[in-house]
Amino acid sequence: MIQIAASIMCANQLKLANELDRLAKAKVDMLHCDVMDGSYVDNLAMGPYVLEEIRAYTEIPLDIHLAVFEPERYIPLFAGCKPEYISVHAEATHHLHRALYMIKEMGVKPVVALNPSTPLSAITHVLQEVDMVLVMTVDPGFAGQKFVTSTLRKIKALTTLCEERGLSPLIQIDGNINSMTIPAAVKAGANVLVGGTSSIFRGEDADYALLVQQMRDSAQAG
Amino acid sequence: MIQIAASIMCANQLKLANELDRLAKAKVDMLHCDVMDGSYVDNLAMGPYVLEEIRAYTEIPLDIHLAVFEPERYIPLFAGCKPEYISVHAEATHHLHRALYMIKEMGVKPVVALNPSTPLSAITHVLQEVDMVLVMTVDPGFAGQKFVTSTLRKIKALTTLCEERGLSPLIQIDGNINSMTIPAAVKAGANVLVGGTSSIFRGEDADYALLVQQMRDSAQAG
Amino acid sequence: MIQIAASIMCANQLKLANELDRLAKAKVDMLHCDVMDGSYVDNLAMGPYVLEEIRAYTEIPLDIHLAVFEPERYIPLFAGCKPEYISVHAEATHHLHRALYMIKEMGVKPVVALNPSTPLSAITHVLQEVDMVLVMTVDPGFAGQKFVTSTLRKIKALTTLCEERGLSPLIQIDGNINSMTIPAAVKAGANVLVGGTSSIFRGEDADYALLVQQMRDSAQAG
Amino acid sequence: MIQIAASIMCANQLKLANELDRLAKAKVDMLHCDVMDGSYVDNLAMGPYVLEEIRAYTEIPLDIHLAVFEPERYIPLFAGCKPEYISVHAEATHHLHRALYMIKEMGVKPVVALNPSTPLSAITHVLQEVDMVLVMTVDPGFAGQKFVTSTLRKIKALTTLCEERGLSPLIQIDGNINSMTIPAAVKAGANVLVGGTSSIFRGEDADYALLVQQMRDSAQAG
Amino acid sequence: MIQIAASIMCANQLKLANELDRLAKAKVDMLHCDVMDGSYVDNLAMGPYVLEEIRAYTEIPLDIHLAVFEPERYIPLFAGCKPEYISVHAEATHHLHRALYMIKEMGVKPVVALNPSTPLSAITHVLQEVDMVLVMTVDPGFAGQKFVTSTLRKIKALTTLCEERGLSPLIQIDGNINSMTIPAAVKAGANVLVGGTSSIFRGEDADYALLVQQMRDSAQAG
Amino acid sequence: MIQIAASIMCANQLKLANELDRLAKAKVDMLHCDVMDGSYVDNLAMGPYVLEEIRAYTEIPLDIHLAVFEPERYIPLFAGCKPEYISVHAEATHHLHRALYMIKEMGVKPVVALNPSTPLSAITHVLQEVDMVLVMTVDPGFAGQKFVTSTLRKIKALTTLCEERGLSPLIQIDGNINSMTIPAAVKAGANVLVGGTSSIFRGEDADYALLVQQMRDSAQAG
Repeated sequence: MIQIAASIMCANQLKLANELDRLAKAKVDMLHCDVMDGSYVDNLAMGPYVLEEIRAYTEIPLDIHLAVFEPERYIPLFAGCKPEYISVHAEATHHLHRALYMIKEMGVKPVVALNPSTPLSAITHVLQEVDMVLVMTVDPGFAGQKFVTSTLRKIKALTTLCEERGLSPLIQIDGNINSMTIPAAVKAGANVLVGGTSSIFRGEDADYALLVQQMRDSAQAG
Repeated sequence: MIQIAASIMCANQLKLANELDRLAKAKVDMLHCDVMDGSYVDNLAMGPYVLEEIRAYTEIPLDIHLAVFEPERYIPLFAGCKPEYISVHAEATHHLHRALYMIKEMGVKPVVALNPSTPLSAITHVLQEVDMVLVMTVDPGFAGQKFVTSTLRKIKALTTLCEERGLSPLIQIDGNINSMTIPAAVKAGANVLVGGTSSIFRGEDADYALLVQQMRDSAQAG
Repeated sequence: MIQIAASIMCANQLKLANELDRLAKAKVDMLHCDVMDGSYVDNLAMGPYVLEEIRAYTEIPLDIHLAVFEPERYIPLFAGCKPEYISVHAEATHHLHRALYMIKEMGVKPVVALNPSTPLSAITHVLQEVDMVLVMTVDPGFAGQKFVTSTLRKIKALTTLCEERGLSPLIQIDGNINSMTIPAAVKAGANVLVGGTSSIFRGEDADYALLVQQMRDSAQAG
Repeated sequence: MIQIAASIMCANQLKLANELDRLAKAKVDMLHCDVMDGSYVDNLAMGPYVLEEIRAYTEIPLDIHLAVFEPERYIPLFAGCKPEYISVHAEATHHLHRALYMIKEMGVKPVVALNPSTPLSAITHVLQEVDMVLVMTVDPGFAGQKFVTSTLRKIKALTTLCEERGLSPLIQIDGNINSMTIPAAVKAGANVLVGGTSSIFRGEDADYALLVQQMRDSAQAG
Repeated sequence: MIQIAASIMCANQLKLANELDRLAKAKVDMLHCDVMDGSYVDNLAMGPYVLEEIRAYTEIPLDIHLAVFEPERYIPLFAGCKPEYISVHAEATHHLHRALYMIKEMGVKPVVALNPSTPLSAITHVLQEVDMVLVMTVDPGFAGQKFVTSTLRKIKALTTLCEERGLSPLIQIDGNINSMTIPAAVKAGANVLVGGTSSIFRGEDADYALLVQQMRDSAQAG
Repeated sequence: MIQIAASIMCANQLKLANELDRLAKAKVDMLHCDVMDGSYVDNLAMGPYVLEEIRAYTEIPLDIHLAVFEPERYIPLFAGCKPEYISVHAEATHHLHRALYMIKEMGVKPVVALNPSTPLSAITHVLQEVDMVLVMTVDPGFAGQKFVTSTLRKIKALTTLCEERGLSPLIQIDGNINSMTIPAAVKAGANVLVGGTSSIFRGEDADYALLVQQMRDSAQAG
């Protein structure tokens, strides 16, 4: 079962309510929300105020991606936004087990994220704790980057590792996910696809329902 | 001449276009935009994407307040949003002169910000470089805090210092600015007032024009 | 009224209960407890576990000196030890007003500490918030250093500033405080004296009551 | 041969001399001493002063666990306490080989520590340099946490790796080590057991000799 | 084909032009230039000014080794020196893929460096991006250290991994590389040898051409 | 008595021995050596190796300017180069008194440096400890910047403060110091002038003796 996550960072920031309506009609499965601290990545994006308002407005589950250092410091702040998922980067904390455990304790589903260069060994000891693994298919921080094809091998290896261990976390991919990149990634094992400017948010007149369906169709081809 | 800055962080984040329309009609003089990095302050807020969209949509000048460490790293990113002003904190860099000079070189008016505990001595050697001084009247990071009354003495001392030096930067105050706090602050020398939840953003039915006018009236009483 | 604070770091760490008994009999006014993080100062000392046990054992008020960076992160942890005072360094946070306010909110008396090189201007805007100012008379971090005589001028200036402003925080001094250094410091305005190895903790056979009395006598000479 | 390490952080901090006497009689094999910097972990504990006094008082070998960032900075300070072992975290330095080598150069036995989420790959290139590997079975920083069962697989894999490479460092486990957790851990290969509040330090009337013997008995069951 | 890199840090710093002449005559294949920031390693060395002058003076290709944290911040500065190679440490950034990509985008060949304790897993996902892998055979920062023999196994494993993946980056070794250490390292797969004080820079009267040839001869023995 | 310091960073880095000969003949009073860490300033320059060689070669006293964070960490390394002076930035350490004291203990003359934006209040409590104050007249880090004229007021105020306190540290200025800027700076009280590309290092054919004399003549005009 493929799920579609819409990257809210790529939406029209001035008309989010309207965007949320369109996404709800398009039946996206979750809203992918990038939080950045300007240190872990060189960019800054949304904070808890807008996330709380989004949560209050829509029933689409929130998937908050913390692209921040020392995520432990921010988990309580963002757990307060009542998301379905919170992801923390394996590279961003020396206490990855604790960070994931904190998320779980707050009633949120923990997710671990991996940069393109990070090996699977970084998560082998926490794999049993997470509901989802986020495999970044571009370097996080900015929209509009090239899909890193070497991540396909990582997705495949992760799929194999999960099978060997009898685990079945969702496998999410983020970064230039569209009809060109979806088939191979899904074939490798990805099942949660983050759509951004190249797949869903194609302007004011775009038919989100159609575009989301096209993502599902591309996945079918995988 | 009193100027009113509307704190966009306090607006309805899901309907910013609509908020900008209401603020334009209310004739606010600038939009105060708080950028936070989770380190300089313990909160995270908006980034360059939403600011670019705001800038493209409205003619109200932007006043970007960088509540971040090492602001030099972010000045190019935010200067790209074409604001009227960028403010950096005196406490947040060891190269305050350079940071202000960078802002100026990029065609933006430099502003220096001071936390409630920071003395004026921190800015005496850059006062001639700035178009505005932002005197924080609460500790930055979160809305809804108490006005720190000891800042009135700082505003007064700044006013005196500027007169002695023949300088006339604007003096902006931010933090629980409303009819209760405006008169004394304006009397001390403040002339740019940042309005937030307690003065402008009082809900969907609020008459922004009226509320902004009330701020101007309160200033008159100062 | 002179108060004597015994520096618990200089006590016999293997027999603290016994040391606390001796100090109680010697009628010291408070226990000065140095907390160090290895970054703000290059040393590490006691943490909350031992402080909680001390608090449970004795009625002598605790005075916890946080020689740590970003003290805001640790205030809740140490406020949980129910001290009378918590001091934070003016140099250790960019949000000094917030840190002191946090301490007060937790029912503890806030204290601001100053290194030998730090000017009074660092605290002029928070002086009204504190119950005590700690003027370090040596560089913090290690016992056994030389008294920095230039701090006498700072104590005197602080005394004058408090008088001008109608404020009367206690003025604590810490670092090589003994019969040689007390008279001039008390004359300058100090009234809480931290006693360590050179004044109170002079070995197993030392008569703490006598030594504490000698500190009071030295103060009398000031 | 199973060795028992008593975690001194869990002892009565006000009567350490007495605790050391009891532990000596109970014939513990080493004293496990947790040093924390408030950054690598969010807690602060003991420093070199108390460790020097412990070392001077007892003949039980010290095992100093540096739960600190950049341990290289502190190794000389703690080597001065003449411990038998110093452990540094694989996650806490980018120069793990150098840190371990520094320890050895100072006449102390080097130990490498691993958090629950850290993979064995982090130490494969230094395994030949160490006398002991510390496998944390809880996230370090605070007492009273739940044993992370996934660490059993790591202990087993470490045991196998050592056999393959013809190496035989001790394998120490720390975190909720008691009769419930010892058998499986020892079976996986652990041979140095850190006892804390749940196994040794059960109050003033506890019979440490008996409790230590029970730990050895539990190990027998492994 | 073995290549020889001369470590410019070991040359006579007062007569670099002369040293460059001697090295050109000795037909070294590249100049290895160590840049240090005092944080990633505890030493400081050369910066962009001297590198620009070296580049303008000689035709020997530059190989700039960034022993610095957050190398992304410095890549533009050093790419401006027009080197052949820039190496970044796998341990020094959480965005290794991005750092290597930045180097490539600036027309320089990207190299990834590994400390003695760092496992190969740190680079398996970027191996396809690099022109060279630098395997440090001592801990970086200071000249005159002992060759870490356990790195031989890493070189061998890297050679095997490259063969398996059909990749052929150069394999450079740095740290006490001389006739004693070259044969085994070359046998393991190293093919770019950094010569320093123990192999090339043996004083004013040394015959660099002869010494470089001896390095090549030692490699022949590998 | 005016002293001339030649900024070695501006010399021909490939022929330093030759440059030192020319500077010795030109009778410069000291060599100003900028050390940068890439963090305190965004540039990297020379380290201890080249400084040791310079020291061994010439009798011109060295004046090492540490434009680095936490200078305490590097003082032993650079004191080993046997300079006459070491300067640390007032902004770069929270323990300025300790840093200056460390320098003195190692037999070197301590100097405190101030960025253009830093007020004199930062050094009022250490003025009695230093042999020289370095007033930066540009933001440190890169050559070729504009003289910040507001620093003249700071130099004058420093001169006055020293007179009031009966102290007479040298007053050094660095940053675009040449015939245009020297007269006013000397008039304000500066007496050690750092010459760089705009005053001494004007190419291979420049007559350093003449240029240094011109600096002294310009000072005469002050």
